[in-house]
Amino acid sequence: MTCSALPDVMLEPLVRLALMEDLGRAGDLTSDALIPAGHMWRAVLVARQDGVIAGLDLARLSFALVDPQTHFEPLVCDGQSVKAGASLAKVSGSTRALLTAERTALNFVSHLSGIATATRQMVDAVAPHKAKICCTRKTTPGLRLVEKYAVRAGGGSNHRFGLDDGILIKDNHIAALGDLRAAVLKAREAVGHMMKIEVEVDTLDQLTRILDLPVDAVLLDNMSPELLAQAVRLIGGRMVSEASGGVSLATVQAIAASGVDVISCGALTHSAAILDIGLDDRA
Amino acid sequence: MTCSALPDVMLEPLVRLALMEDLGRAGDLTSDALIPAGHMWRAVLVARQDGVIAGLDLARLSFALVDPQTHFEPLVCDGQSVKAGASLAKVSGSTRALLTAERTALNFVSHLSGIATATRQMVDAVAPHKAKICCTRKTTPGLRLVEKYAVRAGGGSNHRFGLDDGILIKDNHIAALGDLRAAVLKAREAVGHMMKIEVEVDTLDQLTRILDLPVDAVLLDNMSPELLAQAVRLIGGRMVSEASGGVSLATVQAIAASGVDVISCGALTHSAAILDIGLDDRA
Amino acid sequence: MTCSALPDVMLEPLVRLALMEDLGRAGDLTSDALIPAGHMWRAVLVARQDGVIAGLDLARLSFALVDPQTHFEPLVCDGQSVKAGASLAKVSGSTRALLTAERTALNFVSHLSGIATATRQMVDAVAPHKAKICCTRKTTPGLRLVEKYAVRAGGGSNHRFGLDDGILIKDNHIAALGDLRAAVLKAREAVGHMMKIEVEVDTLDQLTRILDLPVDAVLLDNMSPELLAQAVRLIGGRMVSEASGGVSLATVQAIAASGVDVISCGALTHSAAILDIGLDDRA
Amino acid sequence: MTCSALPDVMLEPLVRLALMEDLGRAGDLTSDALIPAGHMWRAVLVARQDGVIAGLDLARLSFALVDPQTHFEPLVCDGQSVKAGASLAKVSGSTRALLTAERTALNFVSHLSGIATATRQMVDAVAPHKAKICCTRKTTPGLRLVEKYAVRAGGGSNHRFGLDDGILIKDNHIAALGDLRAAVLKAREAVGHMMKIEVEVDTLDQLTRILDLPVDAVLLDNMSPELLAQAVRLIGGRMVSEASGGVSLATVQAIAASGVDVISCGALTHSAAILDIGLDDRA
Amino acid sequence: MTCSALPDVMLEPLVRLALMEDLGRAGDLTSDALIPAGHMWRAVLVARQDGVIAGLDLARLSFALVDPQTHFEPLVCDGQSVKAGASLAKVSGSTRALLTAERTALNFVSHLSGIATATRQMVDAVAPHKAKICCTRKTTPGLRLVEKYAVRAGGGSNHRFGLDDGILIKDNHIAALGDLRAAVLKAREAVGHMMKIEVEVDTLDQLTRILDLPVDAVLLDNMSPELLAQAVRLIGGRMVSEASGGVSLATVQAIAASGVDVISCGALTHSAAILDIGLDDRA
Amino acid sequence: MTCSALPDVMLEPLVRLALMEDLGRAGDLTSDALIPAGHMWRAVLVARQDGVIAGLDLARLSFALVDPQTHFEPLVCDGQSVKAGASLAKVSGSTRALLTAERTALNFVSHLSGIATATRQMVDAVAPHKAKICCTRKTTPGLRLVEKYAVRAGGGSNHRFGLDDGILIKDNHIAALGDLRAAVLKAREAVGHMMKIEVEVDTLDQLTRILDLPVDAVLLDNMSPELLAQAVRLIGGRMVSEASGGVSLATVQAIAASGVDVISCGALTHSAAILDIGLDDRA
Repeated sequence: MTCSALPDVMLEPLVRLALMEDLGRAGDLTSDALIPAGHMWRAVLVARQDGVIAGLDLARLSFALVDPQTHFEPLVCDGQSVKAGASLAKVSGSTRALLTAERTALNFVSHLSGIATATRQMVDAVAPHKAKICCTRKTTPGLRLVEKYAVRAGGGSNHRFGLDDGILIKDNHIAALGDLRAAVLKAREAVGHMMKIEVEVDTLDQLTRILDLPVDAVLLDNMSPELLAQAVRLIGGRMVSEASGGVSLATVQAIAASGVDVISCGALTHSAAILDIGLDDRA
Repeated sequence: MTCSALPDVMLEPLVRLALMEDLGRAGDLTSDALIPAGHMWRAVLVARQDGVIAGLDLARLSFALVDPQTHFEPLVCDGQSVKAGASLAKVSGSTRALLTAERTALNFVSHLSGIATATRQMVDAVAPHKAKICCTRKTTPGLRLVEKYAVRAGGGSNHRFGLDDGILIKDNHIAALGDLRAAVLKAREAVGHMMKIEVEVDTLDQLTRILDLPVDAVLLDNMSPELLAQAVRLIGGRMVSEASGGVSLATVQAIAASGVDVISCGALTHSAAILDIGLDDRA
Repeated sequence: MTCSALPDVMLEPLVRLALMEDLGRAGDLTSDALIPAGHMWRAVLVARQDGVIAGLDLARLSFALVDPQTHFEPLVCDGQSVKAGASLAKVSGSTRALLTAERTALNFVSHLSGIATATRQMVDAVAPHKAKICCTRKTTPGLRLVEKYAVRAGGGSNHRFGLDDGILIKDNHIAALGDLRAAVLKAREAVGHMMKIEVEVDTLDQLTRILDLPVDAVLLDNMSPELLAQAVRLIGGRMVSEASGGVSLATVQAIAASGVDVISCGALTHSAAILDIGLDDRA
Repeated sequence: MTCSALPDVMLEPLVRLALMEDLGRAGDLTSDALIPAGHMWRAVLVARQDGVIAGLDLARLSFALVDPQTHFEPLVCDGQSVKAGASLAKVSGSTRALLTAERTALNFVSHLSGIATATRQMVDAVAPHKAKICCTRKTTPGLRLVEKYAVRAGGGSNHRFGLDDGILIKDNHIAALGDLRAAVLKAREAVGHMMKIEVEVDTLDQLTRILDLPVDAVLLDNMSPELLAQAVRLIGGRMVSEASGGVSLATVQAIAASGVDVISCGALTHSAAILDIGLDDRA
Repeated sequence: MTCSALPDVMLEPLVRLALMEDLGRAGDLTSDALIPAGHMWRAVLVARQDGVIAGLDLARLSFALVDPQTHFEPLVCDGQSVKAGASLAKVSGSTRALLTAERTALNFVSHLSGIATATRQMVDAVAPHKAKICCTRKTTPGLRLVEKYAVRAGGGSNHRFGLDDGILIKDNHIAALGDLRAAVLKAREAVGHMMKIEVEVDTLDQLTRILDLPVDAVLLDNMSPELLAQAVRLIGGRMVSEASGGVSLATVQAIAASGVDVISCGALTHSAAILDIGLDDRA
Repeated sequence: MTCSALPDVMLEPLVRLALMEDLGRAGDLTSDALIPAGHMWRAVLVARQDGVIAGLDLARLSFALVDPQTHFEPLVCDGQSVKAGASLAKVSGSTRALLTAERTALNFVSHLSGIATATRQMVDAVAPHKAKICCTRKTTPGLRLVEKYAVRAGGGSNHRFGLDDGILIKDNHIAALGDLRAAVLKAREAVGHMMKIEVEVDTLDQLTRILDLPVDAVLLDNMSPELLAQAVRLIGGRMVSEASGGVSLATVQAIAASGVDVISCGALTHSAAILDIGLDDRA
């Protein structure tokens, strides 16, 4: 179980942005019209589906930024599996403030818990094997920071955070330069000693041509489990092997059985359905 | 077919945010290391699945903000249905710039086209009936502006954009005030003449108690198609009827057959899978 | 009496902007040079004119953002009428901090109280009639959020907050489309069920042509009280009637006597003089 | 006649803020629904009152940020006096874009022209005398930059831009320190050689006590014209004399006749009514 | 000894910017992986060189923004001289938070203390003379606010904060206008009574031509101490004399001996080495 | 010779920040007062010292953001060595705009060229050896992006960009966990396959204890060249060796001679003096 490790200073701009797009230019007209200013409420975040929780800090900040007097007490930690009906956090304070922040808080924690849940399902599916489940740069625009975090909360691993924290050489790069070997050496020369280099290959033939190059990892793109197994044998531990393409809950176990080190899957961040979470009265 | 109607000034902050989270603190290390500065490329955005396109302006801006010299020519309009393999837009310019902006551009247009496609599927499913398909405030944090737009591109309709552009009275509001009739009148008094008022009801009994009140719409929450049909008859055109809860491609036709005016569905924005779109070489 | 209903998260960016334009690149040179760091002060916001107060939260935030240790205690609520000499709020803390934030705090509350006061005068002037006093989109750039709020504090009502929360069809729109009836139906089709449609007309003739159309409100532009009264009779309650143009304290009562539902007035936000408010020593 | 001297980089953030508060989360719903995308318009900004123009660059930017393809041609310069009916600028381009930006453009130029006009009236009123008309820090929050500019466009002069570009010693400062002479010397020591020092006095008695101090200017607060004339004689050119308090069009000429160098007036920026300016079809 | 006089609202945006460039998209990976969440630490900021301290508020804010629960207690004030080994501030709290904020906090206080130290060295070097040491607009981009502050902490004085708070007429300006006298009078007319005017001259000949003009200060550019002494005699106290160009610790005493009022030196802000400061365990 | 590879979208926010702190609230008062609006100028950026150039794009953007009509033509590329007197770029356009942007443009390019120059001196000093010169996270707050770039332009290499793109285990981390071996394994497990792990050691004894651990690099802190040489032999190519501490132009050659792979030096970014660059008239 992983508890959140992102300081609020990283999350606050995103929560402010989300609150402002819901509050608009007049705030919560309904609550302001109908709820007396001093009316207090005690509520609880409840999971309506089984899943893995992520993003409770964003829920806490949503309430706190609308009203610092609200009290938020998490009952589970990010990364924890829960059953439908589980209480996730208690929140209390001004009824107006709670209703005003409710949708923003739920949108965050539902979205991130959806990603954590999808990740955990894949992680569990490959459990007998050594493969790590890994996300990609196919994230929802503006949310990479927290979506990558949700993948970690789900037990997954992160690939590059952006174009600037690792080298990944693909066909297009090689096409422009004409020579893979030259490309790898040029890249190694260009970046610092803390940067890793990964090369994408589509065939075993391509793979054999890079085996003696100083690359840290190889991305085996769209290969069948059988081809992947051959690739893993060819690599022989010289570099990290990553399978990519066509990864789903239906296929991931067979892919993992090939012996690859890492399986990356864009759908974890770009197509995970939310985990249904609601805010209920706490009598 | 709807062409984009959002001026760039509304989209630019979002595209800058998305680019910066991919460019980080050093930009595209791989392209900078391997692609000669003057190398040029011509590429094409291609749909890899059937679907409805939305967000081409965000793709255009992604390329333009990385390099104003890139040229982007849309071949379809937002809102248009395409088949797998269809060319969506031509883009040309510096290879470095195109590769640097590629993932951000694709993330936007894949995400929004996913929403437009999911919307269109529901719209088509209820075509024999009068019901409009409508989204909710359950949007991805930070993206409400463009996700609501994608729903429109898919042929759907928008519910409230935020807490400030309409009154929606739910159980919690009534609980705090104690009296539904008083709540409606108080809300009507509180807001301007351009604001509509909708009331959420769970039962026909609740519905009958609001039929003579000055409300513009009624949200029929989690009712079966049979109950919805009874509700529609009770309402008798006095207010807009909206069905909500349990809406999916499997259920939406039966719900529409009940005669409701509007069917709202959070999944359109919070759980739509992306439409797979890629950037291919254009020889 | 209305107490503020806008959460601080909506106001803070504006207060930071205002403070920064006064603090510049070196802060309060005079206070820093002359006031010992530990020197404490107790002061009081005082109205120097009769009027209606709005914006005390912005004053509170101005002091709090300069120094969270300052203490601010409101003595009246936004929306309350006060006489010249009335104490509005007590503030205490570091003398430096209070003097540094003083002008920003006063600029906010003077400006918004000026708007609330002008609004209340019109509201009182039409008291025997049913007409609501309403503001427009003619607001001071950057301040729409708080100016619309000040109108509410003064007892007025808000028209559209922006171009996106209601349809208002004017001559220019009809000119481009050629047909008013088509325009209304097209607009109704284009927007969601929570959006209202208003049409601007200049003559009774134009008015008669829209009476059977599904519009929610009609803006009667620059009509005399006599014409307005005829228009109200023609409308017969089918839609909300709004009078606009030439509205001032001198004319508003006659306009209201015509029986219109709403009277809108741009001057409330674009030309209201401030309410003079100062910060006095509190011995 | 002064033409604008503020580079766009200073104005753009303010125009973006103003546009965004009008465009909200869906843009111009009415124009998008009713105006065909390719429809073009030619319009003209027209003064509906006599006055002095300021802020045309902000109008130009409002149109340009909504659509860079719009064309804006100013026909007068900021600072120029115009008669009601005068054409101020031609603008042409997509009808949608022009209607979308219209209100923001007009709000800027009306507000700033209102300030320039009020300033010019005072400047003209004191023309026979040497006194300069000067604004204060009592500006509309967020708009100091452009309001101070509008005062210059109207022929007025600017007092301090903020707390950081000059020393102004008031009662409160002296009270905390106990000794005016010490205060002045301390301030002179504290700030750089490019900073001026002004001291506020309420009586001739106070004035006589600072006449031999190294101050650059003296603010004569709320003195009658007779007292001001005595003060000017006492000062004898040793420092700049500034009259403040109770300044209006009705009183300013008598104040100027006292011989003061500068007359400062908060109402120029905090209470000037707008100059009515509209956008008309240009056939 | 000067204690910080800049309110946090001025510093916070800069500290957030600096933290975010270090935290990136995943925060402190090392501390999060290795330090248990509840682990606490007590540490102390220690000077590793003799110098003058500036920027402790920025260090405090760095820790506070990462975790408001951290406790920061300054042991010296900004502007104080310390010896190598001196403890500057105690900080305690979560080990993770302290390690995460450490580098940002140290980068601020080292950089600003470097500037304060360089300033103090010059101030001390000219101590027998009346000359004030003054910085320029040659500051590190984005840091002018705090670098100018550090100069003050070091005992120096500030020249203009920007292009907008004083007139400085150089060759280029005169070249465009053709006539120095006209330039000075035009500038005096153009700006308010709180603005000072300084003119740059390269020769005694140029100097003699401005001596009867209403300028507040003269910048004597790149003159030898001998020429400076002649210039000071020519000026005869009519205006402030400022020496500029070729100022270093090696030359500043001779320059000061010429009798100039102000010596300005860009190197104070653009080329000062940091003062080495570290964070040590406090057992 | 390296030409800039950072897209403008990464640089623009920093240039806007720098311009705004110089333009303040009224822009360039001197140029606006003295230079006729239509006056044009042709100027050239000139190096006044020998050095390596970096940051020309920031200079170009400084001019372009003040006035898009200015023309900027670089004559050298970032990374190029130049002699004192060399022309770096031609710029032409409105005299006002050029003078307004001059200081900001020069501040950027002088600061970054100072860093590039200091880097190149170290790179040249170690030329006979294989060691790469590398910067640290000791950068000027807010400028890490461009300072790291300047190091690359100078021929240096970049260490981590922040806390999130690599693992660096120091004493404090180990102290909290109690066991180095456990720390390394825990870190490896915690981060993705594209992250490298480096461990800091102070003694050969510590070094021998990590030699069989899966770490990518070892930071040899404050060791003498003799100790470093022993360390390099012990490491035997199993991991990257980095020397740190006490690195200066005087010591770097001896350090490099020890055979280490990387030499990191904070002074490159935190204490490099600027390279003197000016803007001269181009007749």
